[in-house]
Amino acid sequence: LVGIVMGSDSDWPVMSAAAEVLDELAVPHEVGVVSAHRMPQAMLAYGADAAGRGLRVLIAGAGGAAHLPGMLASVTSLPVVGVPVPLKYLDGMDSLLSIVQMPAGVPVATVSVGGARNAGLLAARILGASDDALRARLDDFRSSLEASATAKGAALRARLSSS
Amino acid sequence: LVGIVMGSDSDWPVMSAAAEVLDELAVPHEVGVVSAHRMPQAMLAYGADAAGRGLRVLIAGAGGAAHLPGMLASVTSLPVVGVPVPLKYLDGMDSLLSIVQMPAGVPVATVSVGGARNAGLLAARILGASDDALRARLDDFRSSLEASATAKGAALRARLSSS
Amino acid sequence: LVGIVMGSDSDWPVMSAAAEVLDELAVPHEVGVVSAHRMPQAMLAYGADAAGRGLRVLIAGAGGAAHLPGMLASVTSLPVVGVPVPLKYLDGMDSLLSIVQMPAGVPVATVSVGGARNAGLLAARILGASDDALRARLDDFRSSLEASATAKGAALRARLSSS
Amino acid sequence: LVGIVMGSDSDWPVMSAAAEVLDELAVPHEVGVVSAHRMPQAMLAYGADAAGRGLRVLIAGAGGAAHLPGMLASVTSLPVVGVPVPLKYLDGMDSLLSIVQMPAGVPVATVSVGGARNAGLLAARILGASDDALRARLDDFRSSLEASATAKGAALRARLSSS
Amino acid sequence: LVGIVMGSDSDWPVMSAAAEVLDELAVPHEVGVVSAHRMPQAMLAYGADAAGRGLRVLIAGAGGAAHLPGMLASVTSLPVVGVPVPLKYLDGMDSLLSIVQMPAGVPVATVSVGGARNAGLLAARILGASDDALRARLDDFRSSLEASATAKGAALRARLSSS
Amino acid sequence: LVGIVMGSDSDWPVMSAAAEVLDELAVPHEVGVVSAHRMPQAMLAYGADAAGRGLRVLIAGAGGAAHLPGMLASVTSLPVVGVPVPLKYLDGMDSLLSIVQMPAGVPVATVSVGGARNAGLLAARILGASDDALRARLDDFRSSLEASATAKGAALRARLSSS
Amino acid sequence: LVGIVMGSDSDWPVMSAAAEVLDELAVPHEVGVVSAHRMPQAMLAYGADAAGRGLRVLIAGAGGAAHLPGMLASVTSLPVVGVPVPLKYLDGMDSLLSIVQMPAGVPVATVSVGGARNAGLLAARILGASDDALRARLDDFRSSLEASATAKGAALRARLSSS
Amino acid sequence: LVGIVMGSDSDWPVMSAAAEVLDELAVPHEVGVVSAHRMPQAMLAYGADAAGRGLRVLIAGAGGAAHLPGMLASVTSLPVVGVPVPLKYLDGMDSLLSIVQMPAGVPVATVSVGGARNAGLLAARILGASDDALRARLDDFRSSLEASATAKGAALRARLSSS
Repeated sequence: LVGIVMGSDSDWPVMSAAAEVLDELAVPHEVGVVSAHRMPQAMLAYGADAAGRGLRVLIAGAGGAAHLPGMLASVTSLPVVGVPVPLKYLDGMDSLLSIVQMPAGVPVATVSVGGARNAGLLAARILGASDDALRARLDDFRSSLEASATAKGAALRARLSSS
Repeated sequence: LVGIVMGSDSDWPVMSAAAEVLDELAVPHEVGVVSAHRMPQAMLAYGADAAGRGLRVLIAGAGGAAHLPGMLASVTSLPVVGVPVPLKYLDGMDSLLSIVQMPAGVPVATVSVGGARNAGLLAARILGASDDALRARLDDFRSSLEASATAKGAALRARLSSS
Repeated sequence: LVGIVMGSDSDWPVMSAAAEVLDELAVPHEVGVVSAHRMPQAMLAYGADAAGRGLRVLIAGAGGAAHLPGMLASVTSLPVVGVPVPLKYLDGMDSLLSIVQMPAGVPVATVSVGGARNAGLLAARILGASDDALRARLDDFRSSLEASATAKGAALRARLSSS
Repeated sequence: LVGIVMGSDSDWPVMSAAAEVLDELAVPHEVGVVSAHRMPQAMLAYGADAAGRGLRVLIAGAGGAAHLPGMLASVTSLPVVGVPVPLKYLDGMDSLLSIVQMPAGVPVATVSVGGARNAGLLAARILGASDDALRARLDDFRSSLEASATAKGAALRARLSSS
Repeated sequence: LVGIVMGSDSDWPVMSAAAEVLDELAVPHEVGVVSAHRMPQAMLAYGADAAGRGLRVLIAGAGGAAHLPGMLASVTSLPVVGVPVPLKYLDGMDSLLSIVQMPAGVPVATVSVGGARNAGLLAARILGASDDALRARLDDFRSSLEASATAKGAALRARLSSS
Repeated sequence: LVGIVMGSDSDWPVMSAAAEVLDELAVPHEVGVVSAHRMPQAMLAYGADAAGRGLRVLIAGAGGAAHLPGMLASVTSLPVVGVPVPLKYLDGMDSLLSIVQMPAGVPVATVSVGGARNAGLLAARILGASDDALRARLDDFRSSLEASATAKGAALRARLSSS
Repeated sequence: LVGIVMGSDSDWPVMSAAAEVLDELAVPHEVGVVSAHRMPQAMLAYGADAAGRGLRVLIAGAGGAAHLPGMLASVTSLPVVGVPVPLKYLDGMDSLLSIVQMPAGVPVATVSVGGARNAGLLAARILGASDDALRARLDDFRSSLEASATAKGAALRARLSSS
Repeated sequence: LVGIVMGSDSDWPVMSAAAEVLDELAVPHEVGVVSAHRMPQAMLAYGADAAGRGLRVLIAGAGGAAHLPGMLASVTSLPVVGVPVPLKYLDGMDSLLSIVQMPAGVPVATVSVGGARNAGLLAARILGASDDALRARLDDFRSSLEASATAKGAALRARLSSS
């Protein structure tokens, strides 16, 4: 249902978090390397064929002059989630602006710098908009976040009061 | 199906573009002012009740320390689209970072500074992921963008060659 | 008298400096984890109940799209001090702008990136505005800063002249 | 109770908003021009004498290399609220960083670029921490903000539904 | 010899300066609208066919998430000159980073924000690297710049000394 | 044919990538240290003599207040490629702006921060604009990039499916 | 004694403030247009000859990739004051970084964006370091600044108390 | 003749480079810790007494909200050189803007982030403006820079040609 693509296999350490959270939520997905700049025709074909192949959301990560999410969005009507991958310099600010500042007509759903886990969650929320069972799992996920945060707070207070 | 909210009615000149494009695509939507900082309890209630009221996507615009999109995302499992509204200073960079840099667990689908039209389109793409008729309208929309761009290019060339 | 809260226990290495300086100044305080995005209702409750529980100042640290200080300020009339916690990327600039750029009506007293010690001092100054004994301790604190800086300068000069 | 100072009378159009909101909240205050760079000795004297003269909070606005708030904070133990005044270039980013990035030991409570109204409100919150009547007025103020935002939302919806 | 393209006809007021300076230097060129996001297939075809059609340099202007120069560079081995077109917000910083920060393997020759005249001159220098007559015209152009600057300096001194 | 110069031999670890890719493409080149600030007359002489010595493209790398590329461009009509070398602070943003923001009349073809490999490729593209054999090698180079990216994607998918 | 130069006569509206304050302080000066990029040889000659012609300080203003101050500093041992002139975009941040970030060995005394008046004052302070009469005039100048600021503060207070 | 001061002894690893180059040039100097925020009265006294004690230039280094250079400049007519010391976050951009963006009337001669060696050289150039022997030593210094850069270039070329 979800296609996770990135401009280079060196982006995988960042992008794997998207796949992980989709696994946690039992959302089927595929992973691929689709470089806007090194394989432009294959990249456009990937985007153009995505809906026909049954994909419903695309997640695309790229760094620097990050063109992959926006170019995919130009050849599909599926929602495209963009992950700004930080490079060695500039802390991902170039990646962020290259992805989020799309012109009117072709939107990309951008998440935080390096925010691949949130990209996976956003894809799940998108699918959950029409899938009550998945949305219920997302509700559970949010509850577990709250429980975990509450527990951490209690642990911190316990640690402090005993010191 | 889509709830469009903003932190202040002064955001409407920017945010109205989201409503317009949803009108063009025949996607039902509602509009409201829901301020994270001035009506926090009502804001959380809006987010928490959204799915139950039948909404499937939220679009939230805010400026400066823009907390509305992220706070809504914390109380619903629906996808939330965030629009950074530029204020008088800083060109919307504060709004952008306040919206896009969400912590892992709570994603916001961020669009460009002032990009309310793209927020509407993204909401439509999200709904279209499970609505073939809407996705077909979005395909038509992309075709019309292409036709319009092609026509403008032809007009420019004609203007230049005749001058 | 002072409530120190943070969005995640991972913020504690930064935020502990606020507790330390309040200890030095003998100002009672409590510590907690209150996440705006993972436990929004509990977070609002914390803020809304703070004055009634006898707190007089809140210190809130958060990173990235840092919504905790501003959201607390929206549900209490107590002064809220915000600490921008730097994350892995962007050097805390996102945290700073998310905290300091609050809209008119709901102020947050923002300190420097990672400036939790100053947050504690600011809380003490706030309480000292109506507590002459505490303000006298703060006067002593400033005197000790001056003495320490003067001594360090003398030591540096001594080291240089003997080399 | 509150001293509002600024580096130049050209800052008054920005800083007057601090005085206005203190008037609304019936908090006594004085206004002055105290330039860190043009009258350094008088500036330090102003800060050093403030507590003795009965002031309980200082609000200081300055632009560019904005040294006034930090220098006042170095000679008083009262809380100092800093307002970054935007100049012709750089949108107040220089003013913000010059005010907020104070070294450990000497805090300044920084508000948003041009945020003088919030500086006044923050001063009132600081005084209200030990003044129940003032804090009650601040609670009323927050209620009025909520009522106003709610009314504006209703008006917007009414306008849209009738168009 | 030179193809000047832009993402939208609204870029023409900026990009026309490239055509003007090529006219001054008698370098043949064509102008077109080729949108990376609105006509992606036609855009790639333009780039892929450019060398075969006899073009020797491409100049591409785009704003925001500016993908046109980089995408053209991915489908041709001709040199591509990128012009960051400034949009309403962010002063072209997004356009600049989206164009200049290309990954290793696919270079774009980037000029200044709004620097279309320099893009034209750079295209001429590129052609002049193998065309002695054109390079001689460029030498003359540089001489005329020097003469003009010298004359303006003399005029300024004359104006000042007579006042 | 290509002159690769840099402001300091400490730039060589960055700039060597330009020489390497020119070696891969069999493009003759020379390497030198030509400091704008430490040997200004020799620097101008290098630029002024370049065309006469048979060079056809210059590549110049420099960091901080990076004046070398622009000054060379002021004394030659050859195309000059500028490489922003990142220094210890500011991530090369100072280098980038110092190189790319040239005034109208004197262009520099700027590549990414630290992008020396792309500078070499751009020089090759420039020479290839009038050298069909070199352009064919560049076409092959692009094909090999595509093959490599495709292979990496296949390897990643294989690794994931077998885990 | 002071040479004021700028890259273009369009910089004069900014740079004239340097000449004005030198007139106020009775410091002889000359004005010229010396473009680093359009007349590089004449620019270097101006710098190299400055000391021999009796100049003791140079003031150089430039915008964008502002190379003039640094290049002058490379051919003279006189102190060079650099004025970042803001251009249409980027608010002078490019000009500032291009001037201030000089490599070790060749300093430029940089003032604020558009700060030509301060450049003139700095030149006067430099000359006043060895000229007691001039330094006395500068002492008077500082006194008049203080008197003026004090008077403006009194006027503001008077205006407010009478309203 | 030169007073080198800094806000904290932790700045000495950066600031020592100013003392070193003054030693190389045989310019007498003193070193001290003078904190604007921790010893404000002593800091103003240092500046006010500097000229009377025979100092002719001040060098002041500080980080973050760096107020030391500007405050010294407000109480002396001597030239003040400011060194932006980088702190843990923001790469010294806060320090730079806090020092360079001084208001009209009170200039600070700012050098690069961490540029203490250049601060020492600038102080020497300032003194050399009225000291022919020192200026001759600075001429020699520039010649040695050129010789060193030339030698490094020759060594690099030798190394490359022999490999």
